[in-house]
Amino acid sequence: MRSLQSEPAFDAAYQGSRGAFSEDAAHQFLSSTSRLLPKDTLEEVFDAVSRNQAYYGVVPIENTLAGSIHQCYDLLFEYDVKIVGETVRKIEHALIAPPGVALSDVRRALSHPVALAQCETFFRMNPQIQPTAVYDTAGAVESVMNSPARDAAAVASRRAADLHRGTILVDAIQDHSENYTRFLLISPIASAATRSLRGECKTTVVFRIPNEPGALCRALHQFADRGVDLTKIESRPLRGAPFEYLFYLDLVGLPDSAAISDALMQLRGQSVSLRVLGTYPRGW
Amino acid sequence: MRSLQSEPAFDAAYQGSRGAFSEDAAHQFLSSTSRLLPKDTLEEVFDAVSRNQAYYGVVPIENTLAGSIHQCYDLLFEYDVKIVGETVRKIEHALIAPPGVALSDVRRALSHPVALAQCETFFRMNPQIQPTAVYDTAGAVESVMNSPARDAAAVASRRAADLHRGTILVDAIQDHSENYTRFLLISPIASAATRSLRGECKTTVVFRIPNEPGALCRALHQFADRGVDLTKIESRPLRGAPFEYLFYLDLVGLPDSAAISDALMQLRGQSVSLRVLGTYPRGW
Repeated sequence: MRSLQSEPAFDAAYQGSRGAFSEDAAHQFLSSTSRLLPKDTLEEVFDAVSRNQAYYGVVPIENTLAGSIHQCYDLLFEYDVKIVGETVRKIEHALIAPPGVALSDVRRALSHPVALAQCETFFRMNPQIQPTAVYDTAGAVESVMNSPARDAAAVASRRAADLHRGTILVDAIQDHSENYTRFLLISPIASAATRSLRGECKTTVVFRIPNEPGALCRALHQFADRGVDLTKIESRPLRGAPFEYLFYLDLVGLPDSAAISDALMQLRGQSVSLRVLGTYPRGW
Repeated sequence: MRSLQSEPAFDAAYQGSRGAFSEDAAHQFLSSTSRLLPKDTLEEVFDAVSRNQAYYGVVPIENTLAGSIHQCYDLLFEYDVKIVGETVRKIEHALIAPPGVALSDVRRALSHPVALAQCETFFRMNPQIQPTAVYDTAGAVESVMNSPARDAAAVASRRAADLHRGTILVDAIQDHSENYTRFLLISPIASAATRSLRGECKTTVVFRIPNEPGALCRALHQFADRGVDLTKIESRPLRGAPFEYLFYLDLVGLPDSAAISDALMQLRGQSVSLRVLGTYPRGW
């Protein structure tokens, strides 16, 4: 029981370091004075939430250019956490270097792999710059600022450049101006607020169905027949069962609405397993 | 027209270097004496096939532990190539170092990010070893063999260890013994063999449907109603249209069978766009 444990020392854990996009999302969810706990990996964020180090975790779930953050889907399945919120942030990347380094000096650009994947066109047009994967965007800025190397830059937000006093060599290098990341707010218990949620909500479920013809169609039918809108479907491999998958659905509505609760009851009967990962106010 | 161009100098292009899993798959598709063209990136493989440098390309599309190789899905959409074959290979990873390096010396393990993702448990149990992403598994072995560093190892196949005379420090470090990668054989034109395909075949399609309630369910219904088995569904973000997706389906059957051709005709009417990416003998 939560009440028997000591209170968490932090409001939210996020992956990255100061100036990370996840930190920005955390401020959006909570407040600009929240006590935030930076972690190196997504798994450590889930861990911190599970072990009561922070009330919440803030994790990226999909980017509109690079796609789903699959590790986050896997961790939602592995950890006993609930999704209690979502928010969408516009993402703009800059190429950032220590003062005095010119664009023509740069041979390596450090950033998170998802950020690098959002800047493919820039790297194709600048083949002399080698994209180099590191844990996070803001940490990449910190690292190039502290390095004696004069040929390294980082790909991160303008805010990270400001925080670490880096120079912006090229602004907005992402492939497309319409670049958004959707973040989830996770919590070890279903937020008490769920019961009083108003306005449009979303519910995320994960299920496994028997590997037989038409099974996925029959599953989706439960929602379509009842007019429940599906905003996202994601499949992930099931470990130990080659070429079988777990399916994640984002549905518009509350799980205790008649349409969704009927559909979920029917789907549960068709599934090997089914879990509701959370219900939260729709963020976009 | 293919006949007006010069003949390709290579039988197949693949991503990686000698000893890569894709090279092994290429031998499986073609023959052990095929002339193979190693490339640094998946995009260069698609490029080599499109520009007639090689008759075929061999590309990984999904791994049963790490999931889909999303870049490959995106490239299948971007390039005008056809899928003409599939094969599934069992994947076993070893930790490989230059002779004389002991497990206790190792602080970094280089490999392709998908291979590193398949060995999460090993890295969790050996936190002193930092997983480090590079372009390919076999290239990682080559790189640690040629490096003066005595603290680096590579994660790759036993075959890559043999080829580059590396020592196997730990064998079978993947998270699960049931670890398979499915590879596709791609070609710039639909294989002439398609018309005479016998036995069980698969057809892969990609489509975009309007973003409205029930649209995906109605799309899948076309196949379920006609008893067409769906072995895989994949969604990828549509660039420039935030939170809209392209869907890829693998169907069992030939596109000119009555069931699939009727279903595809109906689905085409429901879709913003639809393309058949290829038909090929079922590989598993």
